[in-house]
Amino acid sequence: MSGHGRPVVVRTVERADPSVVDGLAAMGSATVHEAIGRRGFLGPDIRPIQSGTRIAGSAVTALCHPGDNLMIHAAVETCQPGDILVVAVSAPSTHGFFGDLLGTSVQARGVRGLVIDAGVRDTAELRAMGFPAWSRHVSCQGTVKATAGSVNVPVVVGGQLVGPGDVVCADDDGVVVVARPEAGWALEMSRQRVAKEEDARERLAAGELGLDMYGLRRQLVDMGVHWADTPDDPAG
Amino acid sequence: MSGHGRPVVVRTVERADPSVVDGLAAMGSATVHEAIGRRGFLGPDIRPIQSGTRIAGSAVTALCHPGDNLMIHAAVETCQPGDILVVAVSAPSTHGFFGDLLGTSVQARGVRGLVIDAGVRDTAELRAMGFPAWSRHVSCQGTVKATAGSVNVPVVVGGQLVGPGDVVCADDDGVVVVARPEAGWALEMSRQRVAKEEDARERLAAGELGLDMYGLRRQLVDMGVHWADTPDDPAG
Amino acid sequence: MSGHGRPVVVRTVERADPSVVDGLAAMGSATVHEAIGRRGFLGPDIRPIQSGTRIAGSAVTALCHPGDNLMIHAAVETCQPGDILVVAVSAPSTHGFFGDLLGTSVQARGVRGLVIDAGVRDTAELRAMGFPAWSRHVSCQGTVKATAGSVNVPVVVGGQLVGPGDVVCADDDGVVVVARPEAGWALEMSRQRVAKEEDARERLAAGELGLDMYGLRRQLVDMGVHWADTPDDPAG
Amino acid sequence: MSGHGRPVVVRTVERADPSVVDGLAAMGSATVHEAIGRRGFLGPDIRPIQSGTRIAGSAVTALCHPGDNLMIHAAVETCQPGDILVVAVSAPSTHGFFGDLLGTSVQARGVRGLVIDAGVRDTAELRAMGFPAWSRHVSCQGTVKATAGSVNVPVVVGGQLVGPGDVVCADDDGVVVVARPEAGWALEMSRQRVAKEEDARERLAAGELGLDMYGLRRQLVDMGVHWADTPDDPAG
Amino acid sequence: MSGHGRPVVVRTVERADPSVVDGLAAMGSATVHEAIGRRGFLGPDIRPIQSGTRIAGSAVTALCHPGDNLMIHAAVETCQPGDILVVAVSAPSTHGFFGDLLGTSVQARGVRGLVIDAGVRDTAELRAMGFPAWSRHVSCQGTVKATAGSVNVPVVVGGQLVGPGDVVCADDDGVVVVARPEAGWALEMSRQRVAKEEDARERLAAGELGLDMYGLRRQLVDMGVHWADTPDDPAG
Amino acid sequence: MSGHGRPVVVRTVERADPSVVDGLAAMGSATVHEAIGRRGFLGPDIRPIQSGTRIAGSAVTALCHPGDNLMIHAAVETCQPGDILVVAVSAPSTHGFFGDLLGTSVQARGVRGLVIDAGVRDTAELRAMGFPAWSRHVSCQGTVKATAGSVNVPVVVGGQLVGPGDVVCADDDGVVVVARPEAGWALEMSRQRVAKEEDARERLAAGELGLDMYGLRRQLVDMGVHWADTPDDPAG
Repeated sequence: MSGHGRPVVVRTVERADPSVVDGLAAMGSATVHEAIGRRGFLGPDIRPIQSGTRIAGSAVTALCHPGDNLMIHAAVETCQPGDILVVAVSAPSTHGFFGDLLGTSVQARGVRGLVIDAGVRDTAELRAMGFPAWSRHVSCQGTVKATAGSVNVPVVVGGQLVGPGDVVCADDDGVVVVARPEAGWALEMSRQRVAKEEDARERLAAGELGLDMYGLRRQLVDMGVHWADTPDDPAG
Repeated sequence: MSGHGRPVVVRTVERADPSVVDGLAAMGSATVHEAIGRRGFLGPDIRPIQSGTRIAGSAVTALCHPGDNLMIHAAVETCQPGDILVVAVSAPSTHGFFGDLLGTSVQARGVRGLVIDAGVRDTAELRAMGFPAWSRHVSCQGTVKATAGSVNVPVVVGGQLVGPGDVVCADDDGVVVVARPEAGWALEMSRQRVAKEEDARERLAAGELGLDMYGLRRQLVDMGVHWADTPDDPAG
Repeated sequence: MSGHGRPVVVRTVERADPSVVDGLAAMGSATVHEAIGRRGFLGPDIRPIQSGTRIAGSAVTALCHPGDNLMIHAAVETCQPGDILVVAVSAPSTHGFFGDLLGTSVQARGVRGLVIDAGVRDTAELRAMGFPAWSRHVSCQGTVKATAGSVNVPVVVGGQLVGPGDVVCADDDGVVVVARPEAGWALEMSRQRVAKEEDARERLAAGELGLDMYGLRRQLVDMGVHWADTPDDPAG
Repeated sequence: MSGHGRPVVVRTVERADPSVVDGLAAMGSATVHEAIGRRGFLGPDIRPIQSGTRIAGSAVTALCHPGDNLMIHAAVETCQPGDILVVAVSAPSTHGFFGDLLGTSVQARGVRGLVIDAGVRDTAELRAMGFPAWSRHVSCQGTVKATAGSVNVPVVVGGQLVGPGDVVCADDDGVVVVARPEAGWALEMSRQRVAKEEDARERLAAGELGLDMYGLRRQLVDMGVHWADTPDDPAG
Repeated sequence: MSGHGRPVVVRTVERADPSVVDGLAAMGSATVHEAIGRRGFLGPDIRPIQSGTRIAGSAVTALCHPGDNLMIHAAVETCQPGDILVVAVSAPSTHGFFGDLLGTSVQARGVRGLVIDAGVRDTAELRAMGFPAWSRHVSCQGTVKATAGSVNVPVVVGGQLVGPGDVVCADDDGVVVVARPEAGWALEMSRQRVAKEEDARERLAAGELGLDMYGLRRQLVDMGVHWADTPDDPAG
Repeated sequence: MSGHGRPVVVRTVERADPSVVDGLAAMGSATVHEAIGRRGFLGPDIRPIQSGTRIAGSAVTALCHPGDNLMIHAAVETCQPGDILVVAVSAPSTHGFFGDLLGTSVQARGVRGLVIDAGVRDTAELRAMGFPAWSRHVSCQGTVKATAGSVNVPVVVGGQLVGPGDVVCADDDGVVVVARPEAGWALEMSRQRVAKEEDARERLAAGELGLDMYGLRRQLVDMGVHWADTPDDPAG
């Protein structure tokens, strides 16, 4: 009966091409999310502790238990430059699982940031160190190191499945995950979208209406929307 | 039976006097809210994405459906310089309805900001553009353009009714709506309050107690409050 | 039957030694919380309105009623330099109980900051004045001054009991309360922890793993965690 | 400048035809909501304190302040048999505004139930009396009677505007409001919908698929959905 | 430095007079809360898992850690017939700390019910056993027995301080705590209130208005409320 | 680049042995959750609309979009007797996706119940039909049928991954998912646990303490817990 939920640390993570990861970082989470079909968003409650940082990296995942950060320590060893540490918890927990000591440790290994479905602490110090984090809570409440979990297994964060090696894109709008095999395609789609948006931005800045540019006026009419000059317009 | 909830875009919005609107902008949301009898606050969950911005403007309203920003596009055409776009959704939705492209479009028309009872995205870009927004969520999740709603009808945002042409005051404390016919009166009341507060501020800074300045000491005694020197004071 | 819940203003607060209070301010809320046995945290929902401020002070407490800040005015008179005003409400309330006028008043008395289990307003002004606040909400909604409560009685904020004279430590990670009789011990424990952490920080920055430094590798093995080279590793 | 937000008790309410109101009661909130174009739902957080009750009635509205039920008392006098009392609060409040005494009072006047955007108490007694209530909270916390508000003005409950005399439909699925002038039309639309649903129910019970009955299969294909025999189907 | 937050199991609890406790049980939580000055309510989020049960008992308290019910086991030994087990957790936790085995154990010792600021499980079994519970969550998620806490120390539940031996009153409206020394007074006040309410109920049932019975009409006029026959009444 | 997130309806679901599924139904969600190592709980916010129902079944999954139940219709065709319909939504949505018509349709195909990470409606009718449901919301708000999603792909509900054919166990304590390959083992573990619990229940009912039965007394002493006769006991 072994194997059923038995805790494991997987040492090796298959990662996407670094140039693809770096390319995605420049796109921004909203663009990537849109480009791959409006998928992969970790939801509006995983928020940055800093402002103006935009990164992407390969996920190293840790599955912890409430109020217990033991498995984050186990995950550090598997981190490489360019990674983002992604931490899930087996039940809701507001504790501060990660502070400046762990930040120092993973920053020394080249980790680019943290995404955690729980709390983070030492936020002033982390900002001063330039180590970015996205979390559900900020909390000075510390944790124990007592319960076994797993490292580099698929985890659920913000309702999205994140596998080890998936590409995580994070900025002020939140966090988006791209499945590793889709990373190259996601970058290509994002680039196309950026190019298209650049053109749209110029036309909109010049005063053209989205209503006309996207052909929405006709669609509105077909849907039965009518225009009235005033609230009491008999045409209304 | 036509007319029952039929979608409409009302082209013309009756606005308050621009000098009144600009006057209200300088007052701040807390002052205006207080001055008009503690009414019109859109609640503590509609929050700014930026810090230190204080604006007022005339409401152009859009009523959208969850995850669908079609009617924002229809609203743009009715916007004028000095307006604030106010977006309600027919059911709770965390999606990012508005990003930098829409921001570019309405900024080109002189719109001063966005108030939305849903999510906003491209927040770093909007901040960089100097286009302020107040929203319930920040979310990179994009929307479709598929369902008809209405423009410039009265909408409910944060539990408050906002009509087209009402004056919207927004800053770091949140958003307050002033009914258009009350705008002049609201400005007058706000100015009186500011003048009164200026005097109070000086006296309080000089060490005078609000307890004395507002005559509250007598009121406390009348209510049965007693003073004790220590927790175990027999007078207690 | 008098005395049962009768409202009282206690004039005198027994405070901790000022050098101890100032010593705790330098430690940071997460360190203090950890040092005293992971206790006293007011929870992740009491958040700062500013960034980068770290203070400690002696609690002056006020117990108010929803939407009514009368007892804050009564508390001001009992404040001394080095205090932090701690406000509880008898039932959940999102109102803005405290703004720049009260901020001016207590700042004139040397109060270092505000902790409130409700809303605060005039946040831009308070930041400009350099008066820090930690609150559950930001809200421009004003209050009345109509209902009697108490001052300098023990109150519950964020699920923690705060007594008058207890030491309150607040920064970007939130707020921690230290019982007054424990303050000296808490400072000593915090200093020991900081010293220990300094050493750990250096070793982690140099690349040593927490797994080794804390002896966690053995613990993981004892708990039945196994290491696998790949997800499909037969050892898994 | 009088009239701006000045408190008022409007004595007379224009109500819908009683037979229309009673007709709507039989339809159920979900049917009515659907029949009038998916509008008027007071949201999933206004919940019944009882199970299995389905009513409709004419709204008598009260606008109260947090923790203060004074205006409910003022509203009672304007109630008639067949009414439903609808209570809004000017800011979020969890207090129990309404208990068995008020229930006794309005039941004596023929009021059919209560809808309140706050708390209710004496829930066991109200259930025993057969007086139904829909509320955001259940709370034994009592209120004061201290602050003026209004009666029979339009109020916002659960994000929806409810005017005096509007028809309120409530059952286990929640509460829906129908604007008074739309009541007759809403009943007609609801009856058509019920008739149509009856037929659909029989066909579905007999095993027919909604996919076929509603012509959705074609629509799915047009949208690019494909069918696969297994997860690994090359057609997938 | 001993004594600072050191875990302790206090064996002996000073309890209120059993006849007083039983007297309070009959009053109901709303009446007791009101009678003692609107204090002691554990808030609207601590809800019963059953309907129609009304109890009171002496508090035996346990302070647990998230996801860990060890100290509930330690508390059982200190329970006596007529007690109610009150469980606090040092940080938010949704786990099911208490199920039918613990229910069997404490029911065998005459414990009347459970109040817990966390989750409960085996709810169907507990209802079948006739063992009532009030909790913040229902959750089948089990706990460990690994971390030391305390028994029969004062704890905070739902923002209220509950000391060992305090009287806990619980029914469908929620839970109210009465400090042990106030229990006799609370019963007396509750009885007076019930007597007064009985008279009021009869008058209200006979059609008398609360507006007249409580003298509120005059108060409304004094507050500036005006009466209008219709919404457009010039008197308005 | 096709295949990335392309919508698919998988026709065939590999299911667990029916006798295993039925065996798990009898165990209850809390027992199964505990037996398989405290995994698979869909969280405390997915709640039953009925009381006293305990079922298990094979998951047929549908991935819908907010306010759009199109893919539930597509899923019906793939349902077999003994299945439970599991519905996820791509972003938070409170709409009522499922009512008595869909209930009639799937009940005709032998489906045992519904689990949905959104809202359900017609709850009185579903209870009357004996069709059980577990949902995040109850809402009369209807949906459109406009956006393509997928059927019988792995989905996330309440933060847990549910694959087609996984065994879903649901009762008053909530919902637990068992991966299909683990179903037989889960039943065996659950049976062992039930047997062990039966013995424990008898001993606890006879007055034996869990403290002694589980050997926790020694553990408490080792953790530094001390016993005191009274709160002021010098041993304390």
